[in-house]
Amino acid sequence: VNNWELQDEPETLDDILISCRATLKYAIKTAHPRYFNQLSTGLDMVGLAADWLTSTANTNMFTYEVAPVFVLLEYVTLKKMREIIGWEDGRGDGIFSPGGAISNMYAMLLARFKMFPEVKEKGMSSVPRLAAFTSEHSHFSIKKGAAALGIGTESVICIKADESGKMIPADLERKILEAKQKGFVPFFVSATAGTTVYGAFDPLIAISDICKKYQVWFHVDGAWGGSLIMSRMHKWKLDGVERANSVTWNPHKMMAVPLQCSALLVREEGLMQNCNQMHACYLFQQDKHYDLSYDTGDKALQCGRHVDIFKLWLMWRAKGTIGFEAQIDKCLELSEYLYNKIKDREGYEMVFNGKPQHTNVCFWYLPPGMRYMEDKEEKKKRLHKVAPVIKARMMEYGTTMVSYQPQGDKVNFFRMVISNPAATFEDIDFLIEEIERLGQDL
Amino acid sequence: VNNWELQDEPETLDDILISCRATLKYAIKTAHPRYFNQLSTGLDMVGLAADWLTSTANTNMFTYEVAPVFVLLEYVTLKKMREIIGWEDGRGDGIFSPGGAISNMYAMLLARFKMFPEVKEKGMSSVPRLAAFTSEHSHFSIKKGAAALGIGTESVICIKADESGKMIPADLERKILEAKQKGFVPFFVSATAGTTVYGAFDPLIAISDICKKYQVWFHVDGAWGGSLIMSRMHKWKLDGVERANSVTWNPHKMMAVPLQCSALLVREEGLMQNCNQMHACYLFQQDKHYDLSYDTGDKALQCGRHVDIFKLWLMWRAKGTIGFEAQIDKCLELSEYLYNKIKDREGYEMVFNGKPQHTNVCFWYLPPGMRYMEDKEEKKKRLHKVAPVIKARMMEYGTTMVSYQPQGDKVNFFRMVISNPAATFEDIDFLIEEIERLGQDL
Repeated sequence: VNNWELQDEPETLDDILISCRATLKYAIKTAHPRYFNQLSTGLDMVGLAADWLTSTANTNMFTYEVAPVFVLLEYVTLKKMREIIGWEDGRGDGIFSPGGAISNMYAMLLARFKMFPEVKEKGMSSVPRLAAFTSEHSHFSIKKGAAALGIGTESVICIKADESGKMIPADLERKILEAKQKGFVPFFVSATAGTTVYGAFDPLIAISDICKKYQVWFHVDGAWGGSLIMSRMHKWKLDGVERANSVTWNPHKMMAVPLQCSALLVREEGLMQNCNQMHACYLFQQDKHYDLSYDTGDKALQCGRHVDIFKLWLMWRAKGTIGFEAQIDKCLELSEYLYNKIKDREGYEMVFNGKPQHTNVCFWYLPPGMRYMEDKEEKKKRLHKVAPVIKARMMEYGTTMVSYQPQGDKVNFFRMVISNPAATFEDIDFLIEEIERLGQDL
Repeated sequence: VNNWELQDEPETLDDILISCRATLKYAIKTAHPRYFNQLSTGLDMVGLAADWLTSTANTNMFTYEVAPVFVLLEYVTLKKMREIIGWEDGRGDGIFSPGGAISNMYAMLLARFKMFPEVKEKGMSSVPRLAAFTSEHSHFSIKKGAAALGIGTESVICIKADESGKMIPADLERKILEAKQKGFVPFFVSATAGTTVYGAFDPLIAISDICKKYQVWFHVDGAWGGSLIMSRMHKWKLDGVERANSVTWNPHKMMAVPLQCSALLVREEGLMQNCNQMHACYLFQQDKHYDLSYDTGDKALQCGRHVDIFKLWLMWRAKGTIGFEAQIDKCLELSEYLYNKIKDREGYEMVFNGKPQHTNVCFWYLPPGMRYMEDKEEKKKRLHKVAPVIKARMMEYGTTMVSYQPQGDKVNFFRMVISNPAATFEDIDFLIEEIERLGQDL
């Protein structure tokens, strides 16, 4: 098929099937156990079945009236997630949103409204200059959110991270004081539980102490690392998350729920509703014959909201909490295996020292011809081009896929992540062999 | 199944199947031809198959690298939609977003950025007090967007609508001048093509003239009515849409594409990218081996973005433009049939005069015992309670479902809409009989 255009006349059903086959053929095989390119990988069969059922039901989360079961399942699941976070009796609020960036934006919106409720009616002109704080390794959605919400990216103050990518609490406190001195009002700190590149977990307890001291909203962006709280072996990395005012947690990443499935959990009940509701009585009739507290549509930024809950709920039923735990533990075991395998191997250099905290393993591969180069600058320059070429070759051969990027003054390095429970030790071995095969001549 | 809780241990596969059956059993049958409750109804088999394929591909629209086919299909489809809008050679920009509310929010965000690009870095404190304008019948997402973006709901100025729900251009001009006098800067006008309740089309040409005169961004919220542009018979209702700076158009409504599928179309190329991009080089590597203009992720507010395009594209291939036209024309024919049937029928009163412009038919049903009541206030009071009771009974019997709401000083009335191509004349007849059966004793 080399014609993708849309025409006036219908195609035949045969043509439609050909289009479907071509679409699948040229699609990236994200479920392949050697696809390590993104934080969301794999394909869970129960999750897929649940997504198919969701499509078939073809409704949205707007009101209890049009999605009674899904609304209840969202309620049950959010409560369970809050219990796991450690909030008393699972109390609080939350929503499934279209991805972690929007979940983070919700958190910032709520923090602003909590401190200055008049902003809803009067806008930012009624509010002093605000300041938000997040580490230099945090996700770009914090800045995106600030730009959209009219706060401005310059009001997002970057906190230094240590060598392994964790926010330095002392720098946070220093920058909060600095901002206050300049007349800004600190309103929002976003700590990251599992950074995108290094997989670092910010020290939540120390950060929460600072937030408490300065009365700033404490958000934890656990889009990537939040799921580790389901593992008895790894949950200590999130110690302090129970003190958060809000938590982003994306089951579509480390829990391998089909895309999309992102939750924002909020400690204070009723705040989302107050912040976002517009009382549109033509949409949310107040004289219906059921308990209107189930009509959650007005607490969302969206009007109709896609049903993202059923695949998570059904997978949870099928695996149990221990099933998620086992698959998370396995991915972390694989990444430790990778780390142990390459940390002293010839031709590899780790981007930072120490065992990975998440499944992220960041490393340079130095082709044989570059290993003993004396000119450091020239070596750096050449090394910067290695990962892009190896990756391009991976994609041409179609054997595996892994991400690379620069970070600060560090030239391009590979970032391996594992979130697909179907990945095996052999797949890790293959990756190493493939990098060496494709990179040896560079 | 009366246990929806999530447990530590897995359930059996049998239990999972029982849960699926129960979920479908208690779900609202949104594809039923007598489900008239929402603007999104029906279930297209090609669309469903496409959504299943999308779930199976389990990727997102983040980069060309992870969704090459879907990114190209989105490009092709947005271009086609812009051609249909009437923009030269289909030029411009656009995105599929998580629903009409977010599409409208994007439009407002772009309008603000276009006028005051420094808002991205400096926030609203660098910008004068802004004013947005939309009709009193417009969708609540305009206010929601203003609240979220830090503009404030008080900066959304409601323009009067005429008796049939259309914005009155003279009132728009008056309120723009008034706002300017008060020191506000008018930056955004949202005209509605197909209001939620009345289905009214604002007079786009007259509104666009005013926008041009005062140099204000002209947005058309065609979430509901935009699709009528695909009908040669009905497209005149959107005359002037080609002058818009941005258009919201939800194929998941009148084109019966499975949820969710909402497009924002933007006239100016590059603006979305400039407005939203954050240049996160760890997400959007600049040294990849393909044309980076296909990496559209950074123009979105989201990071990963759900694949909403394939179902629309595949349905379009399967039906052709003429297929969508036929199903839209059919729904409008059915609503005209309903209108003609009840406009002079005993016990019915139309909420506004004249043929419906969209498929919305708004009416009161007066049970026999209320028809000759003399006390107007008492009659109004009782009439207000009729629609909620009839609807509750519809839901208990499970026979049909239709929306009702008050509007301004008008008490609860039924709002019929038809967007399901499977609906027939018999279904309309049934609805009337059912309202009378369930309401006769009230």
